[in-house]
Amino acid sequence: VSWRTTRATASTELAAKRVAVIDLGSNSWRLVLYSYEPGDWWKLTDELYETVRIGAGMGEDNRLQDEAMARGLETLAVFARFCKASHVSGHDVHTVATSAIRDAANQQEFLARAAQAAPELTIEVLSGEDEARLGYLAAVNSTTLREGTVLEIGGGSLQLIEVNRRRPGDMRSFELGAVRLTERFLADSGPAGKADLRRLRKFVTKQLSELSWLKGRGQRLVGIGGAVRNLASAAALQAGQPDIGVQGFLLTREILGDLVSELAGLSQAERGRLPGIKPGRGDIVLAAAATIEAVVDFADVEGIETTEAGLREGVFFERVLLAGHEPLFEDVREAAVRNLAIQYESDLVHVEHVARLSLQLFDSLADQKVFTPVEGERELLWAAAMLHDVGMTISYDDHHKHSRYLILTGGLPGFDPRERALIAQITRYHRKGEPKLGFLAPMMRDGDLEVLERGASLLRVAEHLERGRDQAVNEVRVRRNGDAAALHLRASGDITLPRWSVERYGDADLFERAFGSRLDLD
Amino acid sequence: VSWRTTRATASTELAAKRVAVIDLGSNSWRLVLYSYEPGDWWKLTDELYETVRIGAGMGEDNRLQDEAMARGLETLAVFARFCKASHVSGHDVHTVATSAIRDAANQQEFLARAAQAAPELTIEVLSGEDEARLGYLAAVNSTTLREGTVLEIGGGSLQLIEVNRRRPGDMRSFELGAVRLTERFLADSGPAGKADLRRLRKFVTKQLSELSWLKGRGQRLVGIGGAVRNLASAAALQAGQPDIGVQGFLLTREILGDLVSELAGLSQAERGRLPGIKPGRGDIVLAAAATIEAVVDFADVEGIETTEAGLREGVFFERVLLAGHEPLFEDVREAAVRNLAIQYESDLVHVEHVARLSLQLFDSLADQKVFTPVEGERELLWAAAMLHDVGMTISYDDHHKHSRYLILTGGLPGFDPRERALIAQITRYHRKGEPKLGFLAPMMRDGDLEVLERGASLLRVAEHLERGRDQAVNEVRVRRNGDAAALHLRASGDITLPRWSVERYGDADLFERAFGSRLDLD
Repeated sequence: VSWRTTRATASTELAAKRVAVIDLGSNSWRLVLYSYEPGDWWKLTDELYETVRIGAGMGEDNRLQDEAMARGLETLAVFARFCKASHVSGHDVHTVATSAIRDAANQQEFLARAAQAAPELTIEVLSGEDEARLGYLAAVNSTTLREGTVLEIGGGSLQLIEVNRRRPGDMRSFELGAVRLTERFLADSGPAGKADLRRLRKFVTKQLSELSWLKGRGQRLVGIGGAVRNLASAAALQAGQPDIGVQGFLLTREILGDLVSELAGLSQAERGRLPGIKPGRGDIVLAAAATIEAVVDFADVEGIETTEAGLREGVFFERVLLAGHEPLFEDVREAAVRNLAIQYESDLVHVEHVARLSLQLFDSLADQKVFTPVEGERELLWAAAMLHDVGMTISYDDHHKHSRYLILTGGLPGFDPRERALIAQITRYHRKGEPKLGFLAPMMRDGDLEVLERGASLLRVAEHLERGRDQAVNEVRVRRNGDAAALHLRASGDITLPRWSVERYGDADLFERAFGSRLDLD
Repeated sequence: VSWRTTRATASTELAAKRVAVIDLGSNSWRLVLYSYEPGDWWKLTDELYETVRIGAGMGEDNRLQDEAMARGLETLAVFARFCKASHVSGHDVHTVATSAIRDAANQQEFLARAAQAAPELTIEVLSGEDEARLGYLAAVNSTTLREGTVLEIGGGSLQLIEVNRRRPGDMRSFELGAVRLTERFLADSGPAGKADLRRLRKFVTKQLSELSWLKGRGQRLVGIGGAVRNLASAAALQAGQPDIGVQGFLLTREILGDLVSELAGLSQAERGRLPGIKPGRGDIVLAAAATIEAVVDFADVEGIETTEAGLREGVFFERVLLAGHEPLFEDVREAAVRNLAIQYESDLVHVEHVARLSLQLFDSLADQKVFTPVEGERELLWAAAMLHDVGMTISYDDHHKHSRYLILTGGLPGFDPRERALIAQITRYHRKGEPKLGFLAPMMRDGDLEVLERGASLLRVAEHLERGRDQAVNEVRVRRNGDAAALHLRASGDITLPRWSVERYGDADLFERAFGSRLDLD
């Protein structure tokens, strides 16, 4: 039989809606393509990048330079061509420009030439407040931030946004971008002088002084932008952590201080070779780090939390995915977990039932004081249960290992690296093997092996109670009886299969190690 | 906005057709669920396993023992319940029994009791020839075998099938299964005596002597069954190869001899702890290894090639996926590559065009003697081009790395481990990085780094020529011009984007290292 069918695949992804967001920053320009289904899932599916440095050499008179404009116009033509090839046009292309173009004395000239070079693209020049608001939206939709501050640092400007009960308060944009400050204070390509750094910090702090709500505020500080991500990567690598992305990584004040010292001792070129820092960012990363350090000190916070979302996600959330509503996910973690589960075509009815049974086991053991949960443990078990089958999209064999891979690489905003590692590892051990922290140990805390053992054990029992994927077992409770923990089931159907499955694969030994009780199937 | 939608996901997989194949072997019983779309894709999506050992203790009078039957009936009830829960029934459940049940003097009694315990399942007792034919189908549909022999070894029987021009010749089943031979020659739980092994081999060789077509035949020998897979795993681990599955692994005569010696020196329990050997197989694996060794010697072949497909796939191919045709894939490699590309929702029109451009570059460079391809190199480049985007199903960022992961874990019948590693690695380097063999070096040959560099370079250029995914560049040729290699394009549209993309990301340095010529974009 021939197997040559060239089909127009009826896949979720190819059939999805798509939009392009083009971000004309002061340092880099980027086109990203999102595929999505409102109320269901979303995903970044393509990206073009060019280090245009449109703001390079603007100087005191704030004029875009001819060379920079030429690079920009060429890039716009490429982006326009890409949109056309991708059949994304009109209202589905959102082109926004930030600080350098906003502040340029010759902005009108640039826009006129841009309209000639790429008539398909309508450039919207964002106000400082717009830019700040979009950064805020990216931050609160990719972290659990409720009270605190969002910092966004780009090549041209720095935005700081006050957040109270997830809503924005004061939103401010400062001309304190990394390209600008580098040109002003750290233009020398060699190691940076202490005096220069001091002057930079003083300059930043002086401008911050008008933000009375920020001074000594404490609470959380969430950071947006390539500089924040690169600094977090560098810190994670120096701490010996495996690379699972920096979403949620906390860059403490101490680590940040060490990085500033280390970067200052290097030439601009060497900075770009520091593991974690991208070569194209080597010359401006120190100014960004020192600026962030000044904000951390001024606000008196523990450090800055990284998010991988940014301006482009802000545009996408506000104008596309959540358009027509207040553009906030009700629950960021739940949205992230569901987004992943749906993209990997999980059987949602099944995984939700496994999650329900897992939590029933968890709650009844905790209620009877069989164990004392650590903070957030219940939610990690829920997430692991929801995601335990995502690896089936790769293959049934070893799908527990594939699930771990997908969880570690798939993002999962709202959780920090330790939490993502725990979710991944609980999932990894939901079918077999003796739970270990393994290569993820460097991001764990004391007691996390026990969290893993408890989670893996409960997920295993729940999964096998639901082995038929048919919700035959409606409900499960554990009743402690001396040194045994007896499972009590409420079932709406035949339980031959769940019983066989829990007996064979429920792993009573693991349960006993995790909870100190023998598992009894009633 | 709330993000709580519990949707019945319109995914490829959940909407697919499904069948169950139940295999009642002499040692283990298995239920596997396949999801598929005829002419499009297929995949194993669930599996239940029980070591029933229905043939245990059958002895001279060939009677299934009461205890074994009881284990079997309980397992049948569980399998029936699973089919019901999975909504797979009637003609979509294929239940087949092999050697032990086929040969049992009390077969009728067992079948009657089975019909009571699980009336939903209709057990078909396969003849030895049926079993052999299904094994043959699994082998020729999962390897490139055209001329040679298929060996299938189970707990109860050994099948040997002559293959000429992919078609079956003589097909024979012998009562030489691993459980039977263990009970007869190697029942002692301690290390095996040399005399016992000699007697076993002599017994096997004597029965083979009636196969005149096999004696000294040479050519290829492909092996099916858990024993073959476990032995290949053990050998791959001992050779320090990373675990990427044993599909296509060649177990040479020498390695097999070493394994037999090593296993013979261990107790039955210790054999099951040898890395690669499953614990439940420890007691019977030596008999299987010695039997295979006897066949390899008798046929005078280089060794035995492993396939992960088996009886269950034979049933699935013949009765379901390829039903109504001669049940052979026209081209096993092409079917495997397309199956993977489709499952991961690749844009087939795009990847096929990238494959076409890659091969045009390859051919024009080879025709001009810029390089001399090694055997099979062109096909590896084709496969890598077809699969370069599968990782996008995980995330756009790092999708080249995800593609490697998916290729290494996704099977890909028809290719051996070295070939799969090369395809994966070419794909890994299709966007960035300096091609290295990395952790896959232990399975490579001399010259494979150059194969990788050439493949990665051509795939990069082809991918960027097709950056808009719109087939704007119809055709590409390379013309050698002194020390430069000039790209000549035939285009049906604007080439702003391909030109920009190849200039930025085509990596002229890599091209020069791979082909000794400077890359010129005309």
